[in-house]
Amino acid sequence: MNAEIITIGDEILIGQIVDTNSAYISKELNKIGVSVFQITSVQDDRAHILDALKTAKKHANIVILTGGLGPTKDDITKTTLVEYFNDTLVRNAEVVAHIKHIWKTYIKQPLLQVNLDQALVPSKAKVLMNQSGSAPGMWMEKDKTIFISLPGVPFEMKALMQNEVLPKLSAQFDLPFILHKTLLTYGLGESVIADRISDWENNLPESVKLAYLPNLGRVRLRLSSKGYNKSEVMDLINAQIDKLIPQISDIFVGFEEDSSMEQIIGNQLIKIEKTLAVAESCTGGRIGAQFTANPGASRYFKGGVIAYDTKIKTEVLGVSDVLIDRHSVVSLEVAKAMALGVQKLFGSDYAVATTGNAGPDKGDSDADVGTVCIAIATPNNVFAQQFTFGKHRERITTKAVHMAFTLLQKEIF
Amino acid sequence: MNAEIITIGDEILIGQIVDTNSAYISKELNKIGVSVFQITSVQDDRAHILDALKTAKKHANIVILTGGLGPTKDDITKTTLVEYFNDTLVRNAEVVAHIKHIWKTYIKQPLLQVNLDQALVPSKAKVLMNQSGSAPGMWMEKDKTIFISLPGVPFEMKALMQNEVLPKLSAQFDLPFILHKTLLTYGLGESVIADRISDWENNLPESVKLAYLPNLGRVRLRLSSKGYNKSEVMDLINAQIDKLIPQISDIFVGFEEDSSMEQIIGNQLIKIEKTLAVAESCTGGRIGAQFTANPGASRYFKGGVIAYDTKIKTEVLGVSDVLIDRHSVVSLEVAKAMALGVQKLFGSDYAVATTGNAGPDKGDSDADVGTVCIAIATPNNVFAQQFTFGKHRERITTKAVHMAFTLLQKEIF
Repeated sequence: MNAEIITIGDEILIGQIVDTNSAYISKELNKIGVSVFQITSVQDDRAHILDALKTAKKHANIVILTGGLGPTKDDITKTTLVEYFNDTLVRNAEVVAHIKHIWKTYIKQPLLQVNLDQALVPSKAKVLMNQSGSAPGMWMEKDKTIFISLPGVPFEMKALMQNEVLPKLSAQFDLPFILHKTLLTYGLGESVIADRISDWENNLPESVKLAYLPNLGRVRLRLSSKGYNKSEVMDLINAQIDKLIPQISDIFVGFEEDSSMEQIIGNQLIKIEKTLAVAESCTGGRIGAQFTANPGASRYFKGGVIAYDTKIKTEVLGVSDVLIDRHSVVSLEVAKAMALGVQKLFGSDYAVATTGNAGPDKGDSDADVGTVCIAIATPNNVFAQQFTFGKHRERITTKAVHMAFTLLQKEIF
Repeated sequence: MNAEIITIGDEILIGQIVDTNSAYISKELNKIGVSVFQITSVQDDRAHILDALKTAKKHANIVILTGGLGPTKDDITKTTLVEYFNDTLVRNAEVVAHIKHIWKTYIKQPLLQVNLDQALVPSKAKVLMNQSGSAPGMWMEKDKTIFISLPGVPFEMKALMQNEVLPKLSAQFDLPFILHKTLLTYGLGESVIADRISDWENNLPESVKLAYLPNLGRVRLRLSSKGYNKSEVMDLINAQIDKLIPQISDIFVGFEEDSSMEQIIGNQLIKIEKTLAVAESCTGGRIGAQFTANPGASRYFKGGVIAYDTKIKTEVLGVSDVLIDRHSVVSLEVAKAMALGVQKLFGSDYAVATTGNAGPDKGDSDADVGTVCIAIATPNNVFAQQFTFGKHRERITTKAVHMAFTLLQKEIF
């Protein structure tokens, strides 16, 4: 089974938004055994949408569209589908009742005709009830190709995928099992890794695909395979991983599918019953934000201090002025003092601290742009390392966050 | 001039990464007057890439490809381009010298044959030197269609766009001026806004396009137009904006293109010479991270406390236990005490505090999932408001961050 995803909206083609819907849909389709052949983003334009529908039908058994289902005039997906299917719009009573209910219960503003018109659907469509909004999903079929139209609002699209689309596709088709396992590595470039594991790579079975994904100091190695026998597919991939890991044990930190690095750390801290606090200067709260993005963070994450201004490092975290004068605010010594300061103030077992210069100017410190010091305080030790992370503000802070996770992870396992 | 963007990589089609490159390229092309007709994401597959090149050539004068230029075996864009152009690979001396230089200066690891082979380029290609990496960009032409192949690493792609692609396209073609102006609103749904401004919308000139972009409590209204006379296009859009703003003055907060909300706030704080601190519970550091993502944040942002654990609210921010016992940790009173606490501790003029329950469980508080209290402390006042932001963790915190910016913005202008 091949799928194509068509995302509709001028906002995508002028670069006003990043299309995150298609990545979500691709990932979820993969989980139930549907491969995505192509993703196509098109304008809110009748002729262009019609052309995309015709092209997609040539490649794919399943075509999933998102966007263009809103109540305003720029939304034309529904009328274009009616034209493509040579159909007419009919009022769906269940959707009318649902819209009236959400306006009465949640929105509490006048119900306009354009809102009620969201209940107009093509007569040939099977309606997919959208519990989170007023635009229903629609399931239509033409010559054995399935066309599914979903709202572009990510939350509504995701709920419809989980509650309607994925269960219906799984029930209707006998789908294979697709497995991706991604090994996270830190410390070597992709070509050096490829050189080191070339014998292993050259002997991979035909049915196993390998990809290298470099990203700001990390390289991810992805192994993929599929088949109708789930345990055979898993055994095939796991046998290759068992051969690979001993060759990269110095740079291997975990599997991406299991969880992100911050989740791996969080789960381990919960397991060993330890807590964490952060003292963030150049990372400005990003480390805290990434930990607390995960449910259950309150079981190990106490919080932290965003010590952006130098005075906060001294007055709140208790770093001494003398230390800063002697070593500069971006130094191993100050990073360590920040980690110890927040560890004491917050009563945590572990602490992470960052101090650096993300540019564009030198700022309070004498440190070159890109210099970052990261410290880790453990229950009975503290250490710090200095890094140079280039000249680009966002890359510097992202690399600092990645490196902070990497250093902390090594201490708690 | 129409462009098509082709992003290449299995990681996109299995949903392992979100394709952010195409949004960047679209935005930058728009700025120089090139419209993007379509974005297509395809697999690392020879036949599929060839098919995408042929299809794109029908729509577009300019085809920009990203991805598949790495040194490992899964990268096949270059060999596929050679096939499409019926060409051969030749070694480029300038690229060889560049690769040797970066290995000697920065990488300091053995230079492998696969790294040197990055200097092999199609003989018909004009090389675009990649100062940030080893894979050069390539510019090729076929029957008046330009094909530009760029690395998939965002940082390298962006540098090549800025230094090579955009200047060359601007020099080669007489391009129109494209203008997008986006009004940020907060407080009303898109259909209510559309109803209110329908007379204005119905009388828009043909050459002005309007789009509604709803997003977690905000609706953005985008006006677009293009033409060869820049001042005429600007006058056309500005005249419509002048008519629109009086009709939405209660919900209008600024223009997106000028800057993000946090930049608007930051610039204003710099202008009025005031400082800011944050006390974040449920937002976990995201407000601080968003302010500090912008250069110059140190001119107004002192830092903050991530008070995730209840104890941190009392012990670090000085919120009294009695207050928490009486009102619950998620309450207007505690939010206000947090804002005042961090304002005092950090010596800032303004402070923002968040306390809420982002779920999935009730946690330390009695508050329902989705309840968030946000407080703003000003130099001579403090106030707080309570919100209910649904049930989805990421949406709750995003809405809380948006609302914190909205409340603060109103106080400083």
